[in-house]
Amino acid sequence: MEPVNRIEAALETAFARIETPSGPPKLAAAMRHAVFGAGQRIRPRLCLAVAMACGDDMPAVTDSAAAAVEVLHCASLVHDDMPCFDNADVRRGKPTVHKVYGEPLAVLTGDALIVLAFQTLARGVAMAPERMGRLVDVVAAAIGAPAGLCAGQAWESEPDVDLAEYHRAKTGVLFAAATEAGGAAAGHADPAAWRILGARLGEGYQVADDLRDVAADPERLGKPRGQDAALGRPNAVAALGVEGAIARLKGLVQEAVESIPQCPGRDALQAHILEETRRFVPKELARQAA
Amino acid sequence: MEPVNRIEAALETAFARIETPSGPPKLAAAMRHAVFGAGQRIRPRLCLAVAMACGDDMPAVTDSAAAAVEVLHCASLVHDDMPCFDNADVRRGKPTVHKVYGEPLAVLTGDALIVLAFQTLARGVAMAPERMGRLVDVVAAAIGAPAGLCAGQAWESEPDVDLAEYHRAKTGVLFAAATEAGGAAAGHADPAAWRILGARLGEGYQVADDLRDVAADPERLGKPRGQDAALGRPNAVAALGVEGAIARLKGLVQEAVESIPQCPGRDALQAHILEETRRFVPKELARQAA
Repeated sequence: MEPVNRIEAALETAFARIETPSGPPKLAAAMRHAVFGAGQRIRPRLCLAVAMACGDDMPAVTDSAAAAVEVLHCASLVHDDMPCFDNADVRRGKPTVHKVYGEPLAVLTGDALIVLAFQTLARGVAMAPERMGRLVDVVAAAIGAPAGLCAGQAWESEPDVDLAEYHRAKTGVLFAAATEAGGAAAGHADPAAWRILGARLGEGYQVADDLRDVAADPERLGKPRGQDAALGRPNAVAALGVEGAIARLKGLVQEAVESIPQCPGRDALQAHILEETRRFVPKELARQAA
Repeated sequence: MEPVNRIEAALETAFARIETPSGPPKLAAAMRHAVFGAGQRIRPRLCLAVAMACGDDMPAVTDSAAAAVEVLHCASLVHDDMPCFDNADVRRGKPTVHKVYGEPLAVLTGDALIVLAFQTLARGVAMAPERMGRLVDVVAAAIGAPAGLCAGQAWESEPDVDLAEYHRAKTGVLFAAATEAGGAAAGHADPAAWRILGARLGEGYQVADDLRDVAADPERLGKPRGQDAALGRPNAVAALGVEGAIARLKGLVQEAVESIPQCPGRDALQAHILEETRRFVPKELARQAA
């Protein structure tokens, strides 16, 4: 099965358990709205790619890890889009969850998605309980306190901090968890060695996002352009210029590729990463980046 | 160690992992505000009591299960108190999290507490991975979709439903998870058999809460009196009268006690439950209930 189909199948498996006639229909619909659609599945693809490079000896475990990472990412977007945070109306070209279902259901959707991520992990890893502790721990650390996505967002409520650093950290932490979880799911001897790959790619993705924010067609972007400047957020293009940001992105991808630990599929994974990261750059700038 | 001290110690152990100097201080403070203070710890006490009746052969596993159940309960209170739900200013005699820390941190506090619950489970069960799948599953089902606390709250966004039933279910589901988790943590052969005990006690607790809502001293109650009527919520006292509600409570406790599965500590647990549930009834009505 193609990786992208495998991820959709894993997400559908996770959702099958919650979409029962006995549950509240709007909550299930809002959860589906948050997870299915135009998402690029970059984090779970990365998780899968690492697990496959390590041999992928238990595909059900890999699938559950990849699905958990994506579900947590989507949960964080639902809450981040709410009026008390970014107050975003549009995400991935669709109205945001609170715009369609209201604020109460947006809170509950994020909560229930966090829970679903751990449920998915627990069920997927039932056959390999010795891998579960590490997987739950990796995934939980990436979203909770003191250093996960929630913590990253919470820094915005602190006075006198360098928000630029925390914005970078917010993206990097889930990418690093995706690669570590891929290693852990496939039974790699040292899953933490995979974190640098994810961290560098996360940082690269953030630079690419900054490039898209200034350069991409708003329709393909799925949200208004120029939001970073409007919200006073740090932006690599503002700091380095377009060419400087593209050079930075290339450097990060190179560091990522070189960091890949020894494993049976190292060469193929390096080629895969170089191929995937080409998509990071918006079409409008692809010639400059080539 | 006394059960109540053991639970506080388990919660402190869970918090020690997130209260590091590197994390955002307000998030950590808000999480502590939500979990420590005047809580009665009824659910984790119940979890502990069941595990002890089953032999409590792995106390670290029991502790992590009890702490996880309480942390999830507190997470649900933080979000339920928010303006888009109950808009409550006071909880357990203290201002609610969003009143002290603002709405963004209230959302993040609930999220990070849900994550902390699973993190606590994962670390506590590291020595007994074969018990972890069941424990994560039990705890996740009690809070997520389609039938946990989030789902119970989501029914309020549906037209044409019998909210009374869902309000009852919301309380019952976490009590049932507390007893099942206690059995699972101690390696009982059939943890699901412990659910009836929790479900009946949860229902009894809800009746007792209704009694407190009309009868108790607001200062001891820790929140304004008469809120059910003000919010148009179903209330056992309105439906059955004070004496009828007390009789119903006694009936539920009796059913709970009789449902206790065979286990080494069955007699002691029955006595313990009868003793504990005496506290359910507000002091003002204790003579009537005797």
